[in-house]
This record gives sequence, C-alpha cells and structure tokens, in this order.
Amino acid sequence: MILLTRRATFSAAHYYWNPAWSQEQNEQVFGRCANRNGHGHNYTLEVTVTGRVDAVSGFVVDLKWLKDVIEHEVLDVYDHRHLNLEVPEFATVIPTTENIAIAVWRRLEAPVKAAGGAALSSVRVYETADIFAEFRGE
Amino acid sequence: MILLTRRATFSAAHYYWNPAWSQEQNEQVFGRCANRNGHGHNYTLEVTVTGRVDAVSGFVVDLKWLKDVIEHEVLDVYDHRHLNLEVPEFATVIPTTENIAIAVWRRLEAPVKAAGGAALSSVRVYETADIFAEFRGE
Amino acid sequence: MILLTRRATFSAAHYYWNPAWSQEQNEQVFGRCANRNGHGHNYTLEVTVTGRVDAVSGFVVDLKWLKDVIEHEVLDVYDHRHLNLEVPEFATVIPTTENIAIAVWRRLEAPVKAAGGAALSSVRVYETADIFAEFRGE
Amino acid sequence: MILLTRRATFSAAHYYWNPAWSQEQNEQVFGRCANRNGHGHNYTLEVTVTGRVDAVSGFVVDLKWLKDVIEHEVLDVYDHRHLNLEVPEFATVIPTTENIAIAVWRRLEAPVKAAGGAALSSVRVYETADIFAEFRGE
Amino acid sequence: MILLTRRATFSAAHYYWNPAWSQEQNEQVFGRCANRNGHGHNYTLEVTVTGRVDAVSGFVVDLKWLKDVIEHEVLDVYDHRHLNLEVPEFATVIPTTENIAIAVWRRLEAPVKAAGGAALSSVRVYETADIFAEFRGE
Amino acid sequence: MILLTRRATFSAAHYYWNPAWSQEQNEQVFGRCANRNGHGHNYTLEVTVTGRVDAVSGFVVDLKWLKDVIEHEVLDVYDHRHLNLEVPEFATVIPTTENIAIAVWRRLEAPVKAAGGAALSSVRVYETADIFAEFRGE
Repeated sequence: MILLTRRATFSAAHYYWNPAWSQEQNEQVFGRCANRNGHGHNYTLEVTVTGRVDAVSGFVVDLKWLKDVIEHEVLDVYDHRHLNLEVPEFATVIPTTENIAIAVWRRLEAPVKAAGGAALSSVRVYETADIFAEFRGE
Repeated sequence: MILLTRRATFSAAHYYWNPAWSQEQNEQVFGRCANRNGHGHNYTLEVTVTGRVDAVSGFVVDLKWLKDVIEHEVLDVYDHRHLNLEVPEFATVIPTTENIAIAVWRRLEAPVKAAGGAALSSVRVYETADIFAEFRGE
Repeated sequence: MILLTRRATFSAAHYYWNPAWSQEQNEQVFGRCANRNGHGHNYTLEVTVTGRVDAVSGFVVDLKWLKDVIEHEVLDVYDHRHLNLEVPEFATVIPTTENIAIAVWRRLEAPVKAAGGAALSSVRVYETADIFAEFRGE
Repeated sequence: MILLTRRATFSAAHYYWNPAWSQEQNEQVFGRCANRNGHGHNYTLEVTVTGRVDAVSGFVVDLKWLKDVIEHEVLDVYDHRHLNLEVPEFATVIPTTENIAIAVWRRLEAPVKAAGGAALSSVRVYETADIFAEFRGE
Repeated sequence: MILLTRRATFSAAHYYWNPAWSQEQNEQVFGRCANRNGHGHNYTLEVTVTGRVDAVSGFVVDLKWLKDVIEHEVLDVYDHRHLNLEVPEFATVIPTTENIAIAVWRRLEAPVKAAGGAALSSVRVYETADIFAEFRGE
Repeated sequence: MILLTRRATFSAAHYYWNPAWSQEQNEQVFGRCANRNGHGHNYTLEVTVTGRVDAVSGFVVDLKWLKDVIEHEVLDVYDHRHLNLEVPEFATVIPTTENIAIAVWRRLEAPVKAAGGAALSSVRVYETADIFAEFRGE
C-alpha cells in the first residue's frame, strides 16, 4: 500500500456568518471573518489516495486522471467563486477550512471509488500557509 | 546604500469589472475574474526601502516601525476586506495586481519619507505564487 | 473527526552539551552544535488538534484561541531566547528538535484539553527546512 | 516514540516505458512521459525514522549519520543519473514516484535497522511540488 | 512603469558536454553534469514584462495572454523534453542555466514586442531552489 | 551580461547591543533582540555575480567554484557560530541583517574579482522569510 498525493489550488471568496445570530454575536465569534462583503484566499488542496502499485504501469492511479477529477469535481465549482453565495454545500454550512476539507472529501470519494484500484485516504486544505485542516473520512 | 525589505500578507476579495462595458465585454476581457460575487486571494507584499545604515543602530530603518507602518497604512484597510467595495482607491480603479502595487506605494511613500533616513524603493505584490507586480515609483 | 493545524515560528539560540562528558566527547557526538557560544534557528511549529466540527460555528477549535494559546504557552517563553540558558525544561535536557517537540506537547496538552472539544494530536517542529521532529504523545 | 525526518534532494532523468507495449500504447498511458529521450526532475526525499529519544544525547538517531546513510545508499546512486538506464532497480520497474518511494525504502530499511535504536517509518518522494508518494512499508 | 511577472515550470533532461573536449576534460569541467545519459530538473521560469498600466483594464498585459505565449513559445518546446537532443538552440550551445535564460529571452522578446504596450524586462530561470540565472537583454 | 545567483544557508546566534547605551536604551531600541543570552536564525544568502557567458563552457562562473568560495569565505566563519562573540567584523558592528549583507559582500568581492570573468553584483541576506537586506556595493 502506498499513499499518492496530488496538490491543486483555487482562489475563492467567503465569509463566516451564522444567520441565527445577531451581527454582534457573529463578530464576537468570527471576528473580521464576519464581514459580509467577503474576503478571500488562495486555497491549496492535497488529495491523497491509497492503493497498491499496478505492476504494469507503476501507478496507484493515473495522476492525469486524478488531476482531471479534482478539476471537474472541485475546481470547476470552487475556483474564482464566492463559496457562500455560489457553492451549494455552503448555502447552510459555514465554509471554514474544516468544512471545506469535508466537502472536498464528499465530492471526491465516490469518483475515486468508482474508478477502482484506489481509495481516497485524506483531503488536506490550506487556507493560508499557517492554517490547514485534514479530513480522513468518518 | 542598502535595500531592506519587509514582507507582509493580507487576505481580500476582489473582482474585475469595468462599468462602462457590458457583461459580455467584461467576461471577454476579464474571464472568470468578472464574476461579481467576487473571489479572493492571500496577497503577499514585499516593501523595500533604501538608505544608509545608521552607524549606531545598524539599521536602515527600524523594522518594527516599518511593520507598524505597513499594518496601519495598508493591512488595516485591505485585510479581510472586499477591495472593490471597501477600499477607497478601488472604487473607480480595478484592483489588478498592478494597481494594488501602485496603491500600496502611494499609501507608504509619504510615511516612509516623513520618518527620514530612508526612501521607499519598491513595492512588490504577489497575487498568487505565480503572479506578481512591482512598482518603483514614477 | 478532523485534524486542524496552526503553524507558528520562533527564533532561538541553543547548543548541544552533555555536562557529564568532556569537551572532546561533546564535540565527537554533537559536532559543531557543541559550540557553547551557541548558534540559532528560525523554528517552525505545526500544532495539530483533533475533534469534531461544531455544527454551529464550523470550527474544531477557534483558531484565534489556538494562536493565543501557542503564543502564551510557547512563543512567549521560547522566542528570542537562549533555550539552554532561559527555558526551564532545557536546563537539564538537551534542546534537540526531538526534545523541543516533546516539550511543546507538554506545554500545550493541558490547555487544549481544558478548553474541551478537541485534543492535541501532534506537534511538529522544523529546525530547518531539512530537519523536523513530530511527537504524538506517549 | 517520536518521528524524526531528514529531507534530501537529487536531480535525475527518467521516462515511462513498458517494453511489452507498442509506442502507441505507451503514449496513450504515459503521455509525454513516454518520450524515450527522457526528461527530468528535482526530486525531494523525506526520510522518517521512529524510535525513543535517547536520554543522554537527546537524539532518536544522529542526523549526521542519517544524512550520510541517505547520501551513500540513495543519492550516490540516483543523483545526476538517468534512473531507467543507470539504477539497477529501474531496469525492469518503471521509475514512477510510487516506485521510487518503494525503492528508497528498500535501500534504507536494512541500514537503519542495523544501526539499532530506530526503525524506518516512511519515505516520501516529491517529483514536483504538486505530486508526491509515500511508502510506509508493507 | 510597472514590472509584471508570470511564473511557469517545466521538467526537462539535459547534460553538459563540449564535443571538442575529451571525456576527461568534460568531466573535469562539468563534473557529474557530464554524464551523457542525462539527468534532469524541475525548472522554474519568471518572465517579467514592463510597461504602463492600461487605464481601462488595469493591466500592463493580459496575464492569460502572457501565460499562453510562454506555453506556446517555451513550454511546448522544453517541457518533458531532453534539451540537448530535442531543442534546436541547444544542439550546439550547452544548456546551462545561463544559456536557458538567454534562449527563453530570445523566444519571448519578439512576441511580447509584437503585442504592443509592454516590453520584455527580464527572464529568470531557476534550475533548483539554490541556483538561478537572470537575463535582461543585451 | 547575465546575473547568476547561488543560494546558501547558515545558522547562527546573535544579539543587538550598543555598549555605549544603558540596558534600558538598548531594550527600547532593540526590543527582544537586546537579550544578551542571544537568540538565532537560519540565514539564507543569495550571492549574485554578473558577467558574460563563456562561449565554451556556457558558464558565467563555475557554480561549484562559487559554492566553495561562499563556504570557505562565509559559511566556515558564520555557520553554527555566535556572530557577536566569534566573528571579527561583528566585534564592534551590530550584526543586523543590513550589516551582515555588507560584511558578506566584503568577504566575497575580492575572491570573485580575483577569479576574473565576473564581478560580484549583489548579496541578499534573509534573516527570516519576512525580512531581508540587499547590498550592491557602494
């Protein structure tokens, strides 16, 4: 078993806001992130799959295929978008780094499984160089 | 003469939009950046000053002072903000990387000059690791 | 369960010296690190906590709180200090990268636990870009 | 138990080619990597060992020793070489990132074990900043 | 006037060899780089153009256009290639970092000029993180 | 003319202290850097030379030679040392980033000149990722 990782990046806007709270409560919990004009980040994704190395190709999975899956399932939906306003899973879930990692996992788990040969192992999301979240499934 | 540089970062949202153009024209020129919901970046600033090294302190300028100036003049206004909607100089100027470099220069030139001993030499702005603009004054 | 990481940096001096050994023995084992005038590094910390994502806030822990804990418990004590001469845990323990990782874990484990909701998962310490140690508890 | 990692780099040429396939099949599976003139990369290795911290030295292993082992067992054989043409294990195995990680593990496992006190824990190989494979043994 | 830079990467094989010299002379001057099986690198390019910021678009040049020019003029010819064997300008010129910087300049100077509005200012080529060459024209 | 740069790193301890001042004055100007137990950094050097590319070798200078010069003239004296206590030029000059850049220039200018063919163009010193000074000669 080997772990194979592909990195990708996307740029998006977001804000942190709980509609059940007042402006004051939102600012107290979320600080400057509660600004509803939004701010943004260059996010970095690390998508890791695990499986056996195919004896013929030397691949766990074809990295070009994995790149295409990440682009189609994640980047086409997230890149140059406002996460709160344009991405369905963040209509009611706050797009924190933690929740983005979980959402990316859910977008990628089935396509990776369907391809056979490898399983999704972890999704790591960097919001900045100093903050990252990693989800490895339930 | 020596060049001394301080790096700083801020996260902001922006979009590219010329109000004199139709939606189609904006999308043709600006592509995905024309999305008016906004997207965002982790910007990195490199602010360079030039001057003689003070024989007593060994400093061109006090880097703590320079950090404070950058925070007060730039980060307090740009960080966790929507550049188009909340920063005065981008009300009528498109916040491209080039224009952000010029705007940061204009915010920093006078305070650096007022402090004496050093002059602003260049402002470099990274929008991503792959794109940066540098302004060295007129 | 999700892993959430906060990075932080500090600059410190240290040396490697076993007082039970002669100068020759120390130099044989520790090489240039045995120079008792000290040398130093820009250390990078990666502090990882694990827990469930709070459904209301979208947080495992509040990253601002985590930043404050790291600053108060670690950076205030280590940054711009001589680890051997000024940090209590290194009075009798050599401040190798391994021992710094363990010491940072011991400083952070209780405060993270006391806050509830998340547990300390790992502490990684980079001495340089090429050398790092990670401690995950006993 | 603690994890201690040493990073190292080497520059090498390689290509992907299965001699049982036609040129067309190789190009279909391996794309531009099937170019038999070869292309190349700056590879980054992260070699991680695990063990107890020695109470006297503060070391899991002596990092200078680990550096020498990596240089002697891996870099002297791989650096500035054509992996397919000059490295024995890639005479019949395609030098994908996955297979390089496994090959480096096999070169390092015995010497680390023979030294006592620590075991090889993982070998991570970066082909580029965006692609890496990690092997942790069978 | 502002400087605008676009970064790009390519992976290629090369060797250093002067056909007028003996094997011994080549190895004496070029060391391990004289291995004619070739080795390789992940090269990073920084292409900088200079010009006035267009008042309507906020651009010096359209970065998507610049990216396309770099891909068409340089990456399509260099990426996943053996520089000595497959790139015309290195048939008789040794592909050192210096010569690659000059060759990339010559490939980009005319197309940038033809587009109008900006001039090529510098080409920087990183062979590794530790070695880079920069050419600013004659 | 081309610019060729070699990067190198060293780890050292230092402090900022003006013996003509009281403890209070030193702390007021130098803050935490005035701690006389010392602290330290991983310094990164970028040494740039300029010259014509030799038509036979494709080199401005032999980078292995440049590496050896930097190691012999700078790293052997600075690395794993306390700059204030062990490096002659900092006995009476405060080892700020600015002064280190000037001192490295003075150590390298003559040997580069003596080798012929190229001149020292600039010395850049990074104290951390966020602070660097560059000296280009008088």
